[in-house]
Amino acid sequence: MGFKTIDEANEAVVQRMISTQPTLIDVVPAKSVIPELNDENTKTLLHAGPPIRFDQMSDPMQGSCVGAVLFEKWADNEEDARKMLENDEIRFVPFHHVNGVGPMGGITSANFPVLVVKDTSNETEKNTAYCTLNEGIGAVLRFGAFGPQVIERLEWQRDVLGPVLSKALRQIDGGMNVNGAIARAIAMGDEFHQRNIAASYAFLRDLAPIITALEDVEQKDKEDVIQFLADTDQFFLNVAMAAGKVMTDTARNEIQSGTIVTAMCRNGHEFGIRIAGMGDEWFTGPVNTPQGLYFTGFSEEDANPDMGDSAITETIGVGGMAMIAAPAVTRFVGTGGFNDALETSNDMAEITIAENPNWIIPTWNFRGAPTGIDARLVVETGILPVINTGIANKVAGRGQIGAGTVTPPMEAFEKAITAYAKKLGMK
Amino acid sequence: MGFKTIDEANEAVVQRMISTQPTLIDVVPAKSVIPELNDENTKTLLHAGPPIRFDQMSDPMQGSCVGAVLFEKWADNEEDARKMLENDEIRFVPFHHVNGVGPMGGITSANFPVLVVKDTSNETEKNTAYCTLNEGIGAVLRFGAFGPQVIERLEWQRDVLGPVLSKALRQIDGGMNVNGAIARAIAMGDEFHQRNIAASYAFLRDLAPIITALEDVEQKDKEDVIQFLADTDQFFLNVAMAAGKVMTDTARNEIQSGTIVTAMCRNGHEFGIRIAGMGDEWFTGPVNTPQGLYFTGFSEEDANPDMGDSAITETIGVGGMAMIAAPAVTRFVGTGGFNDALETSNDMAEITIAENPNWIIPTWNFRGAPTGIDARLVVETGILPVINTGIANKVAGRGQIGAGTVTPPMEAFEKAITAYAKKLGMK
Repeated sequence: MGFKTIDEANEAVVQRMISTQPTLIDVVPAKSVIPELNDENTKTLLHAGPPIRFDQMSDPMQGSCVGAVLFEKWADNEEDARKMLENDEIRFVPFHHVNGVGPMGGITSANFPVLVVKDTSNETEKNTAYCTLNEGIGAVLRFGAFGPQVIERLEWQRDVLGPVLSKALRQIDGGMNVNGAIARAIAMGDEFHQRNIAASYAFLRDLAPIITALEDVEQKDKEDVIQFLADTDQFFLNVAMAAGKVMTDTARNEIQSGTIVTAMCRNGHEFGIRIAGMGDEWFTGPVNTPQGLYFTGFSEEDANPDMGDSAITETIGVGGMAMIAAPAVTRFVGTGGFNDALETSNDMAEITIAENPNWIIPTWNFRGAPTGIDARLVVETGILPVINTGIANKVAGRGQIGAGTVTPPMEAFEKAITAYAKKLGMK
Repeated sequence: MGFKTIDEANEAVVQRMISTQPTLIDVVPAKSVIPELNDENTKTLLHAGPPIRFDQMSDPMQGSCVGAVLFEKWADNEEDARKMLENDEIRFVPFHHVNGVGPMGGITSANFPVLVVKDTSNETEKNTAYCTLNEGIGAVLRFGAFGPQVIERLEWQRDVLGPVLSKALRQIDGGMNVNGAIARAIAMGDEFHQRNIAASYAFLRDLAPIITALEDVEQKDKEDVIQFLADTDQFFLNVAMAAGKVMTDTARNEIQSGTIVTAMCRNGHEFGIRIAGMGDEWFTGPVNTPQGLYFTGFSEEDANPDMGDSAITETIGVGGMAMIAAPAVTRFVGTGGFNDALETSNDMAEITIAENPNWIIPTWNFRGAPTGIDARLVVETGILPVINTGIANKVAGRGQIGAGTVTPPMEAFEKAITAYAKKLGMK
């Protein structure tokens, strides 16, 4: 394995995660960078989480699939779309398998615009990750909505938002430094899963002057793009997710040793993790349902089981791991006050092996984000990673009904450790 | 006095400060709202702090005066400008005396654009306060610079920035709610004196869509204004200052009783405070020189004594009072880590009588900003308000050389209490 001990391998993996330079360089059509979406013979949808069949998907995720089929004009009504999906006319591929991540359902098809985040510290070909654009709140595809306004917004993102952001980002020499963006906003109360408001404001602050000055964009499109960015407090979540994907993939592509968690994701059915020493293999267990605060009129009975690739943020040490950076989130997710946030991050320090010196948390007395979950420590201590998450209505298209925290199943970590021990020839 | 006890009066004053609704409604030429600046017979400059003569002013403040004279074209070179100033051809009026406040030197003349913040909870005529626009950093008038680029920037602010902001603000129905803006950004690491980055980003976020869509503004002016706002992390300081002025003036205009501090300001020579029970009277003592961290190559020997009206932020419970909201500031001003920030705000709670429920600080376990400094408590406890401040080079025009904290002279509080006791007929 090239390392004398698991600890040494783990340290190398975490340091490689930390030393990546995720850089947002462009927004492009998904099919232009993901060959699986550009296959004339096989209609393909990407989805969040580990592999899953259509019939296993929860209602919101199935709704998202219907929406994507309508968006791609593979069918022109829900009934026909569902038939295609049920009759196996569509291939499903985990977004994680094609260098990307998607929030909630994560359903993504050929013509979705995707953020392109490149690790500029990495000269190999495997140095880029993708994520869809945030759709805002309300009726959105990622929560399973597929009505006309959802499809129209996706068309606008495809035709206007994506191309305008692409033009603007390409004006930034060397691209937008995501490490720097996270460093700035982690001192402004963001933890980059539940709360991205500072980073999203900063993103607009960085891009608004450029967008305003673009010469080959219609005035109305400039106005609409700037208004959309101003209205979308979670816009940066998807940037952070793509950054998380490239950080973890850079590390796991270079080092296939040790027990550091390199992916955590959920498909509404199973929670999957990867560890560096086991490469592409998924270790899964049944997903939990988030615990938290519900919007008026909703309760846990209405909640969909946990889904989405957004737990990539916790995988890189932010989200619930960095709860102390965003004490305002604790009230939103129903986990108490400042001291509860502190306790959460202190707990997370028990199962991580490093602090990211790029992401200093002033409210944690200037400690760095707790990074590098060691699956062994999770099993040994019984402390599970805390994931901040939105809660989806279990009925497709009804959107977000609350926010809370969720933990992975311990089973996934146990399976990963057992498999790695076996690989190393331990009994 | 209408109150049975000083405590009762103090409570009323603080509650009136808290119940104001400071609303940013416009940006206008100073002379259009401040009659003292529109007097054909008397050239007038406003300045920060309690009353002061030109010959008492420190070099940066005198430099600012030269700049204002050049900006108004009362003279066309420094020598002539200084002659006018030294020969008493210019009348000096404290900005505080004309419903406004100015940062650092605070020097303001007829054609400066000023922010207009109105207390919309207040139907009287005395419901509005003013503050100049932030000039950004580097060579700026408020630190005493008066070179061509300083004057050109002021001309641009007069001709472009002011009018564009005016048009944009007037598009917001009812104006921009400053309480809401502070509430949002106090959860994002701002304390509104040393750190206004979140509020400034949010300000841009609120205005960029409007500015982009303005129909009667040149494209280049839109670009320049959006770029300036994007580059000016302290832009919101001046908004917070005007809000502070209207909050304190509303309270002290309605209630002339008690020992709550209604103004704190410095002119580089004297530190002045007002208390509600003594109306317009200033109680002064010699200013201190800030303690803090200096930029490379500078030391305390280079520092100008404390100046500026910006301590109005501490007067309303933010700035150094709310240090815990902005632990990142503690590193910048050299006052240690998270626990030092906590200790500072806990100390400030000892000399204030309320917490502002509008401005909840998540990092202070969701307590409100410590508001309403009781001059009696300052004298009794010996705890002085902590003011976060920039440190100016004592040579005009060399700008900011560091950042730190400063305290008022105890003498000012003692004098105020003594005078009020005398007024009440106590011995």
